[in-house]
Amino acid sequence: MSLSTNKDLPIGVFDSGIGGLTVLRALQHALPHENFLYLGDTARLPYGTKSPQTVKDYALNANEILVATGVKALVVACNTATAVALDALQEKFQPLPVLGVIAPGAIASLEIASEGPIVVLATESTAKWHAYRDILSSLAPERTVIEWPCQLLVALAEEGWCEGPLVEEIISKLLSPLFAYLGNTKPACILLGCTHFPVLKSAMQHVVGTIPVIDPAHTLAAQVITLLSSQNLLRAGTKQETQFMATDGIERFARVAQTFLGYAISSEDVELVTVIPKITTAKKANTA
Amino acid sequence: MSLSTNKDLPIGVFDSGIGGLTVLRALQHALPHENFLYLGDTARLPYGTKSPQTVKDYALNANEILVATGVKALVVACNTATAVALDALQEKFQPLPVLGVIAPGAIASLEIASEGPIVVLATESTAKWHAYRDILSSLAPERTVIEWPCQLLVALAEEGWCEGPLVEEIISKLLSPLFAYLGNTKPACILLGCTHFPVLKSAMQHVVGTIPVIDPAHTLAAQVITLLSSQNLLRAGTKQETQFMATDGIERFARVAQTFLGYAISSEDVELVTVIPKITTAKKANTA
Repeated sequence: MSLSTNKDLPIGVFDSGIGGLTVLRALQHALPHENFLYLGDTARLPYGTKSPQTVKDYALNANEILVATGVKALVVACNTATAVALDALQEKFQPLPVLGVIAPGAIASLEIASEGPIVVLATESTAKWHAYRDILSSLAPERTVIEWPCQLLVALAEEGWCEGPLVEEIISKLLSPLFAYLGNTKPACILLGCTHFPVLKSAMQHVVGTIPVIDPAHTLAAQVITLLSSQNLLRAGTKQETQFMATDGIERFARVAQTFLGYAISSEDVELVTVIPKITTAKKANTA
Repeated sequence: MSLSTNKDLPIGVFDSGIGGLTVLRALQHALPHENFLYLGDTARLPYGTKSPQTVKDYALNANEILVATGVKALVVACNTATAVALDALQEKFQPLPVLGVIAPGAIASLEIASEGPIVVLATESTAKWHAYRDILSSLAPERTVIEWPCQLLVALAEEGWCEGPLVEEIISKLLSPLFAYLGNTKPACILLGCTHFPVLKSAMQHVVGTIPVIDPAHTLAAQVITLLSSQNLLRAGTKQETQFMATDGIERFARVAQTFLGYAISSEDVELVTVIPKITTAKKANTA
Protein backbone atom coordinates (compact mmCIF):
# COMPACT_ATOMS: atom_id res chain seq x y z
CA MET A 1 0.00 0.00 0.00
CA SER A 2 1.48 3.30 -1.06
CA LEU A 3 0.07 5.15 1.96
CA SER A 4 2.14 3.25 4.49
CA THR A 5 5.38 2.77 2.61
CA ASN A 6 6.45 6.36 2.01
CA LYS A 7 9.06 7.44 4.57
CA ASP A 8 8.63 11.10 3.76
CA LEU A 9 4.94 11.24 4.57
CA PRO A 10 4.14 12.92 7.85
CA ILE A 11 2.76 11.22 10.93
CA GLY A 12 -0.88 12.23 11.35
CA VAL A 13 -1.90 13.38 14.82
CA PHE A 14 -5.60 13.71 15.50
CA ASP A 15 -7.39 15.34 18.40
CA SER A 16 -10.80 16.82 19.06
CA GLY A 17 -9.10 20.15 19.66
CA ILE A 18 -5.87 21.44 21.13
CA GLY A 19 -5.13 19.05 24.03
CA GLY A 20 -3.49 16.64 21.59
CA LEU A 21 -0.77 19.24 21.09
CA THR A 22 0.84 17.88 24.29
CA VAL A 23 1.10 14.54 22.49
CA LEU A 24 2.44 16.22 19.36
CA ARG A 25 5.04 17.99 21.49
CA ALA A 26 6.25 14.67 22.94
CA LEU A 27 6.34 13.13 19.46
CA GLN A 28 8.24 16.10 17.99
CA HIS A 29 10.82 15.73 20.74
CA ALA A 30 11.18 11.95 20.44
CA LEU A 31 11.15 11.90 16.63
CA PRO A 32 13.19 14.95 15.58
CA HIS A 33 13.46 13.92 11.92
CA GLU A 34 9.79 13.18 11.31
CA ASN A 35 7.20 15.50 9.85
CA PHE A 36 3.82 15.88 11.48
CA LEU A 37 0.35 16.79 10.31
CA TYR A 38 -1.93 17.77 13.21
CA LEU A 39 -5.70 18.01 12.92
CA GLY A 40 -7.90 19.43 15.67
CA ASP A 41 -11.64 18.93 15.13
CA THR A 42 -12.35 22.23 16.85
CA ALA A 43 -15.72 22.64 15.10
CA ARG A 44 -17.08 19.78 17.16
CA LEU A 45 -15.06 19.84 20.37
CA PRO A 46 -15.25 18.73 23.08
CA TYR A 47 -15.71 15.04 22.34
CA GLY A 48 -15.57 14.32 26.08
CA THR A 49 -19.18 15.19 26.85
CA LYS A 50 -20.71 13.52 23.78
CA SER A 51 -22.11 10.03 23.28
CA PRO A 52 -19.92 7.15 22.00
CA GLN A 53 -21.70 6.92 18.64
CA THR A 54 -21.41 10.67 18.06
CA VAL A 55 -17.70 10.62 18.91
CA LYS A 56 -17.14 7.63 16.60
CA ASP A 57 -18.92 9.37 13.71
CA TYR A 58 -16.94 12.56 14.22
CA ALA A 59 -13.57 10.77 14.54
CA LEU A 60 -14.11 8.62 11.45
CA ASN A 61 -15.16 11.66 9.47
CA ALA A 62 -12.39 13.99 10.61
CA ASN A 63 -9.59 11.45 10.12
CA GLU A 64 -10.56 11.14 6.47
CA ILE A 65 -8.92 14.53 6.05
CA LEU A 66 -5.58 13.32 7.45
CA VAL A 67 -5.62 10.11 5.46
CA ALA A 68 -6.64 11.85 2.25
CA THR A 69 -3.82 14.37 2.70
CA GLY A 70 -1.38 11.51 3.18
CA VAL A 71 0.17 10.14 6.38
CA LYS A 72 2.35 7.11 7.09
CA ALA A 73 0.83 6.48 10.52
CA LEU A 74 -2.04 7.90 12.53
CA VAL A 75 -1.83 8.83 16.22
CA VAL A 76 -5.17 9.37 17.93
CA ALA A 77 -4.09 11.94 20.51
CA CYS A 78 -7.46 12.09 22.20
CA ASN A 79 -8.50 9.79 25.00
CA THR A 80 -12.20 10.02 24.18
CA ALA A 81 -11.69 9.17 20.50
CA THR A 82 -9.25 6.39 21.39
CA ALA A 83 -11.73 4.93 23.88
CA VAL A 84 -14.62 4.62 21.46
CA ALA A 85 -13.24 4.93 17.93
CA LEU A 86 -9.76 3.32 17.79
CA ASP A 87 -11.04 -0.06 16.54
CA ALA A 88 -13.24 1.59 13.93
CA LEU A 89 -10.38 3.83 12.77
CA GLN A 90 -7.98 0.89 12.48
CA GLU A 91 -10.54 -1.07 10.49
CA LYS A 92 -11.48 1.81 8.21
CA PHE A 93 -7.94 2.86 7.35
CA GLN A 94 -6.13 -0.51 7.34
CA PRO A 95 -3.31 -1.27 6.64
CA LEU A 96 -2.36 2.22 7.90
CA PRO A 97 -0.99 1.88 11.46
CA VAL A 98 -3.30 3.66 13.93
CA LEU A 99 -2.16 4.14 17.54
CA GLY A 100 -4.19 5.48 20.44
CA VAL A 101 -3.19 7.10 23.75
CA ILE A 102 -4.84 4.68 26.14
CA ALA A 103 -2.72 1.54 25.77
CA PRO A 104 0.56 3.48 26.21
CA GLY A 105 -0.84 5.09 29.36
CA ALA A 106 -1.88 1.72 30.75
CA ILE A 107 1.53 0.20 29.98
CA ALA A 108 3.36 3.14 31.56
CA SER A 109 1.28 2.88 34.73
CA LEU A 110 2.10 -0.83 35.10
CA GLU A 111 5.82 -0.17 34.60
CA ILE A 112 5.98 2.43 37.36
CA ALA A 113 4.98 0.15 40.25
CA SER A 114 3.97 -3.47 40.65
CA GLU A 115 1.31 -2.88 43.27
CA GLY A 116 -1.17 -0.32 44.57
CA PRO A 117 -4.21 1.16 42.88
CA ILE A 118 -3.75 2.96 39.58
CA VAL A 119 -5.53 6.30 39.51
CA VAL A 120 -6.54 7.65 36.11
CA LEU A 121 -7.55 11.31 35.93
CA ALA A 122 -9.76 11.83 32.91
CA THR A 123 -12.65 13.68 31.36
CA GLU A 124 -16.13 12.64 32.44
CA SER A 125 -16.65 10.45 29.40
CA THR A 126 -13.29 8.66 29.47
CA ALA A 127 -13.91 7.92 33.14
CA LYS A 128 -17.47 6.78 32.51
CA TRP A 129 -16.61 4.50 29.60
CA HIS A 130 -13.92 2.72 31.66
CA ALA A 131 -11.47 2.56 28.78
CA TYR A 132 -8.45 2.45 31.12
CA ARG A 133 -10.03 -0.05 33.50
CA ASP A 134 -10.87 -2.34 30.59
CA ILE A 135 -7.38 -2.43 29.12
CA LEU A 136 -5.70 -2.64 32.53
CA SER A 137 -7.96 -5.50 33.59
CA SER A 138 -6.74 -7.47 30.57
CA LEU A 139 -3.07 -6.60 31.17
CA ALA A 140 -3.05 -6.93 34.97
CA PRO A 141 -6.39 -8.25 36.26
CA GLU A 142 -5.23 -8.13 39.89
CA ARG A 143 -4.69 -4.36 39.92
CA THR A 144 -7.27 -1.89 41.16
CA VAL A 145 -8.06 0.93 38.73
CA ILE A 146 -9.78 4.13 39.80
CA GLU A 147 -10.96 6.41 37.01
CA TRP A 148 -11.53 9.88 38.43
CA PRO A 149 -13.32 12.58 36.40
CA CYS A 150 -11.61 16.00 36.46
CA GLN A 151 -13.46 17.92 33.75
CA LEU A 152 -12.63 21.29 35.29
CA LEU A 153 -8.90 20.76 34.64
CA VAL A 154 -9.58 21.00 30.90
CA ALA A 155 -10.86 24.57 31.27
CA LEU A 156 -8.03 25.39 33.66
CA ALA A 157 -5.43 24.25 31.10
CA GLU A 158 -7.14 26.15 28.28
CA GLU A 159 -7.16 29.28 30.45
CA GLY A 160 -3.38 28.86 30.70
CA TRP A 161 -3.58 28.53 34.49
CA CYS A 162 -0.89 25.87 34.78
CA GLU A 163 0.91 26.55 38.05
CA GLY A 164 0.88 28.51 41.28
CA PRO A 165 -0.90 28.29 44.63
CA LEU A 166 -4.45 28.83 43.32
CA VAL A 167 -4.05 26.14 40.66
CA GLU A 168 -2.71 23.74 43.28
CA GLU A 169 -5.62 24.59 45.56
CA ILE A 170 -8.09 23.82 42.74
CA ILE A 171 -6.36 20.50 42.00
CA SER A 172 -6.31 19.71 45.69
CA LYS A 173 -10.05 20.34 46.02
CA LEU A 174 -10.79 18.20 42.94
CA LEU A 175 -8.70 15.34 44.32
CA SER A 176 -9.77 15.56 47.96
CA PRO A 177 -12.78 13.21 47.56
CA LEU A 178 -10.41 10.77 45.82
CA PHE A 179 -7.95 10.76 48.70
CA ALA A 180 -10.81 10.53 51.21
CA TYR A 181 -12.00 7.47 49.30
CA LEU A 182 -8.49 5.95 49.24
CA GLY A 183 -7.99 6.45 52.98
CA ASN A 184 -4.58 5.10 54.00
CA THR A 185 -3.96 3.42 50.65
CA LYS A 186 -1.28 5.11 48.57
CA PRO A 187 -1.87 4.92 44.82
CA ALA A 188 0.85 3.42 42.62
CA CYS A 189 0.63 6.39 40.31
CA ILE A 190 -1.58 9.11 38.89
CA LEU A 191 -2.03 8.63 35.18
CA LEU A 192 -2.94 11.73 33.15
CA GLY A 193 -5.79 10.26 31.11
CA CYS A 194 -6.61 13.47 29.25
CA THR A 195 -4.22 15.18 26.88
CA HIS A 196 -4.95 18.57 28.45
CA PHE A 197 -3.55 17.52 31.80
CA PRO A 198 0.22 17.30 31.11
CA VAL A 199 0.44 21.12 31.20
CA LEU A 200 -0.70 20.83 34.84
CA LYS A 201 1.73 18.01 35.63
CA SER A 202 4.13 20.08 37.70
CA ALA A 203 1.33 21.62 39.82
CA MET A 204 -0.24 18.20 40.26
CA GLN A 205 3.08 16.71 41.33
CA HIS A 206 3.28 19.40 44.04
CA VAL A 207 -0.19 18.45 45.26
CA VAL A 208 0.30 14.67 45.33
CA GLY A 209 3.86 14.67 46.69
CA THR A 210 5.72 11.43 46.08
CA ILE A 211 3.03 9.70 44.01
CA PRO A 212 4.38 9.48 40.43
CA VAL A 213 2.37 11.48 37.88
CA ILE A 214 2.49 9.87 34.43
CA ASP A 215 2.10 11.48 31.01
CA PRO A 216 1.31 8.65 28.54
CA ALA A 217 2.71 10.63 25.61
CA HIS A 218 6.28 9.52 26.29
CA THR A 219 5.39 5.82 26.13
CA LEU A 220 3.29 6.52 23.05
CA ALA A 221 6.27 8.18 21.35
CA ALA A 222 8.39 5.11 22.09
CA GLN A 223 5.69 2.92 20.52
CA VAL A 224 5.65 5.08 17.37
CA ILE A 225 9.45 4.72 17.07
CA THR A 226 9.20 0.94 17.46
CA LEU A 227 6.43 0.72 14.91
CA LEU A 228 8.07 2.90 12.27
CA SER A 229 11.48 1.34 12.70
CA SER A 230 10.01 -2.17 12.39
CA GLN A 231 8.62 -1.18 9.01
CA ASN A 232 11.73 0.74 7.92
CA LEU A 233 9.68 3.93 7.83
CA LEU A 234 11.83 6.15 10.08
CA ARG A 235 13.25 9.21 8.38
CA ALA A 236 16.80 10.25 9.18
CA GLY A 237 18.84 13.41 9.05
CA THR A 238 16.19 15.78 7.76
CA LYS A 239 14.63 18.83 9.36
CA GLN A 240 11.30 18.42 11.10
CA GLU A 241 8.22 20.16 9.74
CA THR A 242 4.81 20.34 11.32
CA GLN A 243 1.58 21.43 9.69
CA PHE A 244 -1.49 22.36 11.65
CA MET A 245 -5.11 22.02 10.57
CA ALA A 246 -8.30 22.80 12.48
CA THR A 247 -11.94 22.50 11.52
CA ASP A 248 -12.94 25.83 13.08
CA GLY A 249 -11.67 28.87 14.99
CA ILE A 250 -8.04 28.94 13.81
CA GLU A 251 -7.37 32.22 15.67
CA ARG A 252 -8.32 30.66 19.00
CA PHE A 253 -6.44 27.47 18.10
CA ALA A 254 -3.26 29.45 17.47
CA ARG A 255 -3.69 31.58 20.59
CA VAL A 256 -4.28 28.70 23.00
CA ALA A 257 -1.76 26.38 21.30
CA GLN A 258 1.31 27.80 23.01
CA THR A 259 0.32 26.47 26.43
CA PHE A 260 0.14 22.95 25.08
CA LEU A 261 2.81 23.02 22.39
CA GLY A 262 5.48 24.93 24.26
CA TYR A 263 6.05 27.40 21.42
CA ALA A 264 3.95 30.07 19.73
CA ILE A 265 2.23 29.68 16.39
CA SER A 266 0.14 32.22 14.50
CA SER A 267 -3.23 31.68 12.91
CA GLU A 268 -1.44 31.81 9.55
CA ASP A 269 0.29 28.58 10.52
CA VAL A 270 -3.09 26.86 10.91
CA GLU A 271 -5.06 25.74 7.89
CA LEU A 272 -8.83 25.82 8.19
CA VAL A 273 -10.34 22.60 6.86
CA THR A 274 -14.04 22.11 6.66
CA VAL A 275 -16.18 19.20 7.74
CA ILE A 276 -19.57 20.16 6.42
CA PRO A 277 -22.46 18.76 8.41
CA LYS A 278 -25.27 18.28 5.89
CA ILE A 279 -27.82 18.06 8.62
CA THR A 280 -31.16 16.35 8.54
CA THR A 281 -33.41 16.40 11.55
CA ALA A 282 -34.99 13.30 13.02
CA LYS A 283 -37.08 13.35 16.18
CA LYS A 284 -37.25 10.08 18.05
CA ALA A 285 -40.72 10.67 19.39
CA ASN A 286 -43.46 13.21 19.11
CA THR A 287 -43.76 15.32 22.22
CA ALA A 288 -46.28 17.79 20.91
CA MET B 1 -50.62 31.55 11.43
CA SER B 2 -51.64 28.63 13.59
CA LEU B 3 -48.21 28.38 15.24
CA SER B 4 -48.43 31.71 16.97
CA THR B 5 -52.09 31.84 17.91
CA ASN B 6 -52.44 28.81 20.16
CA LYS B 7 -52.36 29.82 23.84
CA ASP B 8 -51.77 26.28 25.01
CA LEU B 9 -48.60 25.75 23.05
CA PRO B 10 -45.43 25.87 25.14
CA ILE B 11 -42.78 28.55 25.00
CA GLY B 12 -39.71 27.11 23.31
CA VAL B 13 -36.41 27.73 25.08
CA PHE B 14 -33.26 26.99 23.14
CA ASP B 15 -29.68 26.72 24.33
CA SER B 16 -26.49 25.07 23.15
CA GLY B 17 -26.54 23.00 26.33
CA ILE B 18 -27.56 23.40 29.94
CA GLY B 19 -26.68 27.01 30.77
CA GLY B 20 -30.01 28.14 29.32
CA LEU B 21 -31.71 26.35 32.20
CA THR B 22 -31.00 29.46 34.30
CA VAL B 23 -33.14 31.37 31.80
CA LEU B 24 -35.80 28.67 31.87
CA ARG B 25 -35.82 28.89 35.66
CA ALA B 26 -36.45 32.63 35.56
CA LEU B 27 -39.20 32.14 32.96
CA GLN B 28 -40.86 29.36 34.97
CA HIS B 29 -40.92 31.64 37.98
CA ALA B 30 -42.22 34.70 36.13
CA LEU B 31 -44.77 32.78 34.02
CA PRO B 32 -46.23 30.16 36.38
CA HIS B 33 -49.10 29.20 34.07
CA GLU B 34 -47.08 28.69 30.92
CA ASN B 35 -45.71 25.43 29.58
CA PHE B 36 -42.12 25.21 28.39
CA LEU B 37 -40.25 23.08 25.91
CA TYR B 38 -36.49 23.25 26.43
CA LEU B 39 -33.95 22.07 23.89
CA GLY B 40 -30.22 21.81 24.62
CA ASP B 41 -28.06 21.13 21.57
CA THR B 42 -25.65 19.10 23.70
CA ALA B 43 -24.34 17.11 20.72
CA ARG B 44 -22.65 20.26 19.44
CA LEU B 45 -21.92 22.30 22.55
CA PRO B 46 -20.20 24.57 23.30
CA TYR B 47 -21.21 27.14 20.71
CA GLY B 48 -18.96 29.68 22.44
CA THR B 49 -15.70 28.55 20.86
CA LYS B 50 -17.04 28.03 17.35
CA SER B 51 -17.15 30.35 14.35
CA PRO B 52 -20.21 32.57 13.66
CA GLN B 53 -21.26 30.64 10.55
CA THR B 54 -21.02 27.30 12.35
CA VAL B 55 -23.08 28.62 15.27
CA LYS B 56 -25.68 30.01 12.88
CA ASP B 57 -25.96 26.69 11.01
CA TYR B 58 -26.32 24.76 14.26
CA ALA B 59 -28.88 27.15 15.77
CA LEU B 60 -31.07 27.22 12.65
CA ASN B 61 -30.97 23.46 12.44
CA ALA B 62 -31.64 22.73 16.11
CA ASN B 63 -34.51 25.21 16.41
CA GLU B 64 -36.35 23.39 13.64
CA ILE B 65 -37.03 20.71 16.25
CA LEU B 66 -38.72 23.17 18.63
CA VAL B 67 -40.75 24.81 15.89
CA ALA B 68 -41.78 21.48 14.37
CA THR B 69 -42.91 20.25 17.79
CA GLY B 70 -44.97 23.42 18.21
CA VAL B 71 -44.22 26.52 20.26
CA LYS B 72 -45.98 29.88 20.55
CA ALA B 73 -42.75 31.82 21.05
CA LEU B 74 -39.07 31.06 20.95
CA VAL B 75 -36.55 32.22 23.54
CA VAL B 76 -32.91 31.93 22.50
CA ALA B 77 -31.37 31.36 25.93
CA CYS B 78 -27.81 31.35 24.64
CA ASN B 79 -25.72 34.47 24.27
CA THR B 80 -23.60 33.04 21.48
CA ALA B 81 -26.59 31.95 19.41
CA THR B 82 -28.35 35.26 20.10
CA ALA B 83 -25.26 37.19 19.03
CA VAL B 84 -24.90 35.56 15.63
CA ALA B 85 -28.18 33.82 14.81
CA LEU B 86 -31.09 35.86 16.23
CA ASP B 87 -31.78 37.71 12.98
CA ALA B 88 -31.59 34.51 10.96
CA LEU B 89 -33.89 32.69 13.40
CA GLN B 90 -36.44 35.53 13.34
CA GLU B 91 -36.40 35.55 9.55
CA LYS B 92 -36.61 31.79 9.17
CA PHE B 93 -39.47 31.26 11.62
CA GLN B 94 -41.51 34.45 11.08
CA PRO B 95 -44.16 35.34 12.23
CA LEU B 96 -43.20 33.32 15.33
CA PRO B 97 -41.87 35.74 17.98
CA VAL B 98 -38.19 35.01 18.67
CA LEU B 99 -36.48 36.72 21.62
CA GLY B 100 -32.79 36.65 22.52
CA VAL B 101 -30.93 37.23 25.78
CA ILE B 102 -28.69 40.09 24.73
CA ALA B 103 -31.15 42.98 24.35
CA PRO B 104 -32.74 42.32 27.79
CA GLY B 105 -29.28 42.30 29.37
CA ALA B 106 -28.38 45.56 27.67
CA ILE B 107 -31.64 47.19 28.77
CA ALA B 108 -31.22 45.98 32.35
CA SER B 109 -27.69 47.36 32.52
CA LEU B 110 -28.86 50.80 31.36
CA GLU B 111 -31.67 50.83 33.93
CA ILE B 112 -29.35 50.14 36.85
CA ALA B 113 -27.21 53.27 36.56
CA SER B 114 -27.05 56.24 34.23
CA GLU B 115 -23.26 56.51 34.15
CA GLY B 116 -20.09 54.51 34.50
CA PRO B 117 -18.72 51.73 32.32
CA ILE B 118 -20.86 48.66 31.78
CA VAL B 119 -18.89 45.47 32.27
CA VAL B 120 -20.16 42.38 30.45
CA LEU B 121 -18.73 39.03 31.55
CA ALA B 122 -19.07 36.55 28.73
CA THR B 123 -17.64 33.58 26.90
CA GLU B 124 -14.70 34.21 24.62
CA SER B 125 -16.84 34.37 21.51
CA THR B 126 -19.58 36.61 22.88
CA ALA B 127 -16.86 38.98 24.06
CA LYS B 128 -15.00 38.80 20.75
CA TRP B 129 -18.08 39.39 18.60
CA HIS B 130 -19.00 42.53 20.59
CA ALA B 131 -22.71 41.72 20.62
CA TYR B 132 -23.31 43.69 23.84
CA ARG B 133 -21.15 46.62 22.77
CA ASP B 134 -23.02 46.85 19.46
CA ILE B 135 -26.50 46.95 20.98
CA LEU B 136 -25.45 49.25 23.83
CA SER B 137 -23.78 51.64 21.42
CA SER B 138 -27.11 52.00 19.60
CA LEU B 139 -29.13 52.41 22.83
CA ALA B 140 -26.66 54.62 24.70
CA PRO B 141 -23.73 55.65 22.50
CA GLU B 142 -22.09 57.67 25.26
CA ARG B 143 -21.62 54.70 27.59
CA THR B 144 -18.39 52.70 27.79
CA VAL B 145 -18.83 48.95 27.40
CA ILE B 146 -16.16 46.46 28.46
CA GLU B 147 -16.70 42.87 27.35
CA TRP B 148 -14.57 40.61 29.49
CA PRO B 149 -14.06 36.92 28.60
CA CYS B 150 -14.46 34.52 31.51
CA GLN B 151 -14.53 31.11 29.81
CA LEU B 152 -13.33 29.29 32.93
CA LEU B 153 -16.53 30.23 34.80
CA VAL B 154 -18.50 27.96 32.46
CA ALA B 155 -16.54 24.91 33.63
CA LEU B 156 -16.76 26.08 37.24
CA ALA B 157 -20.56 26.29 37.02
CA GLU B 158 -20.82 22.88 35.35
CA GLU B 159 -18.66 21.40 38.10
CA GLY B 160 -21.25 22.72 40.55
CA TRP B 161 -18.65 24.89 42.28
CA CYS B 162 -20.97 27.85 42.88
CA GLU B 163 -19.88 29.36 46.18
CA GLY B 164 -17.27 29.38 48.91
CA PRO B 165 -13.82 30.90 49.40
CA LEU B 166 -12.06 29.00 46.60
CA VAL B 167 -14.73 29.94 44.05
CA GLU B 168 -14.46 33.57 45.13
CA GLU B 169 -10.69 33.40 44.82
CA ILE B 170 -10.99 32.03 41.27
CA ILE B 171 -13.46 34.78 40.32
CA SER B 172 -11.21 37.35 41.94
CA LYS B 173 -8.19 36.16 39.92
CA LEU B 174 -10.20 36.18 36.69
CA LEU B 175 -11.41 39.73 37.36
CA SER B 176 -8.17 41.18 38.72
CA PRO B 177 -6.83 42.25 35.28
CA LEU B 178 -10.21 43.92 34.66
CA PHE B 179 -10.03 45.94 37.85
CA ALA B 180 -6.39 46.78 37.18
CA TYR B 181 -7.51 48.07 33.78
CA LEU B 182 -10.37 50.07 35.32
CA GLY B 183 -8.10 51.69 37.92
CA ASN B 184 -10.12 54.09 40.05
CA THR B 185 -13.19 53.93 37.82
CA LYS B 186 -16.10 52.06 39.37
CA PRO B 187 -18.24 50.15 36.87
CA ALA B 188 -21.97 50.87 36.74
CA CYS B 189 -22.71 47.16 36.87
CA ILE B 190 -21.48 43.71 36.02
CA LEU B 191 -23.75 42.07 33.49
CA LEU B 192 -23.76 38.28 33.37
CA GLY B 193 -23.45 37.83 29.61
CA CYS B 194 -23.38 34.01 29.71
CA THR B 195 -26.30 31.91 30.93
CA HIS B 196 -23.96 29.75 33.03
CA PHE B 197 -22.94 32.64 35.21
CA PRO B 198 -26.11 33.31 37.25
CA VAL B 199 -25.36 30.24 39.41
CA LEU B 200 -22.18 32.09 40.45
CA LYS B 201 -24.00 35.38 41.06
CA SER B 202 -23.84 35.26 44.83
CA ALA B 203 -20.11 34.44 44.89
CA MET B 204 -19.47 37.14 42.31
CA GLN B 205 -21.44 39.68 44.33
CA HIS B 206 -19.18 38.89 47.31
CA VAL B 207 -16.12 39.54 45.17
CA VAL B 208 -17.26 42.81 43.57
CA GLY B 209 -18.86 44.29 46.70
CA THR B 210 -21.31 47.09 45.97
CA ILE B 211 -21.18 46.86 42.16
CA PRO B 212 -24.58 45.51 41.03
CA VAL B 213 -24.41 42.09 39.34
CA ILE B 214 -27.18 41.69 36.75
CA ASP B 215 -28.82 38.49 35.49
CA PRO B 216 -30.55 39.40 32.18
CA ALA B 217 -33.06 36.56 32.54
CA HIS B 218 -35.38 38.63 34.74
CA THR B 219 -35.69 41.41 32.15
CA LEU B 220 -36.11 38.78 29.45
CA ALA B 221 -38.99 37.20 31.39
CA ALA B 222 -40.67 40.60 31.63
CA GLN B 223 -40.31 40.99 27.85
CA VAL B 224 -41.92 37.61 27.27
CA ILE B 225 -44.88 38.58 29.45
CA THR B 226 -45.30 41.85 27.56
CA LEU B 227 -45.08 40.10 24.21
CA LEU B 228 -47.52 37.29 25.01
CA SER B 229 -50.00 39.58 26.71
CA SER B 230 -49.95 42.01 23.76
CA GLN B 231 -51.01 39.12 21.52
CA ASN B 232 -53.49 37.68 24.00
CA LEU B 233 -51.40 34.54 24.23
CA LEU B 234 -50.93 34.33 28.00
CA ARG B 235 -52.38 31.24 29.62
CA ALA B 236 -54.14 31.57 32.97
CA GLY B 237 -54.96 29.33 35.89
CA THR B 238 -53.42 26.12 34.63
CA LYS B 239 -50.55 24.06 36.00
CA GLN B 240 -47.11 24.56 34.49
CA GLU B 241 -45.46 21.74 32.59
CA THR B 242 -41.94 21.65 31.25
CA GLN B 243 -40.49 19.19 28.76
CA PHE B 244 -36.79 18.74 28.24
CA MET B 245 -35.03 17.67 25.07
CA ALA B 246 -31.33 17.29 24.36
CA THR B 247 -29.45 16.23 21.25
CA ASP B 248 -26.94 14.05 23.14
CA GLY B 249 -25.90 12.79 26.58
CA ILE B 250 -29.23 12.95 28.40
CA GLU B 251 -27.75 11.35 31.54
CA ARG B 252 -25.19 14.12 31.89
CA PHE B 253 -27.84 16.71 31.03
CA ALA B 254 -30.07 15.46 33.83
CA ARG B 255 -27.21 15.21 36.32
CA VAL B 256 -25.83 18.70 35.73
CA ALA B 257 -29.26 20.31 35.31
CA GLN B 258 -29.98 20.69 39.01
CA THR B 259 -27.28 23.33 39.50
CA PHE B 260 -28.85 25.53 36.84
CA LEU B 261 -32.51 24.67 37.24
CA GLY B 262 -32.71 24.63 41.01
CA TYR B 263 -34.48 21.26 41.14
CA ALA B 264 -33.54 17.72 40.19
CA ILE B 265 -34.64 15.95 37.04
CA SER B 266 -33.85 12.40 35.94
CA SER B 267 -32.65 11.27 32.53
CA GLU B 268 -36.14 9.83 31.98
CA ASP B 269 -37.42 13.40 32.02
CA VAL B 270 -35.17 14.28 29.09
CA GLU B 271 -36.01 13.21 25.57
CA LEU B 272 -33.13 12.47 23.25
CA VAL B 273 -33.69 14.11 19.88
CA THR B 274 -31.31 13.58 17.04
CA VAL B 275 -29.71 16.08 14.71
CA ILE B 276 -27.98 13.83 12.25
CA PRO B 277 -24.93 15.34 10.66
CA LYS B 278 -24.72 13.77 7.21
CA ILE B 279 -21.15 14.80 6.82
CA THR B 280 -19.23 15.42 3.66
CA THR B 281 -15.63 16.45 3.77
CA ALA B 282 -14.23 19.42 1.89
CA LYS B 283 -10.64 20.52 2.19
CA LYS B 284 -9.97 24.15 1.38
CA ALA B 285 -6.47 23.55 0.11
CA ASN B 286 -4.12 20.70 -0.52
CA THR B 287 -1.33 20.53 2.07
CA ALA B 288 0.21 17.24 0.95
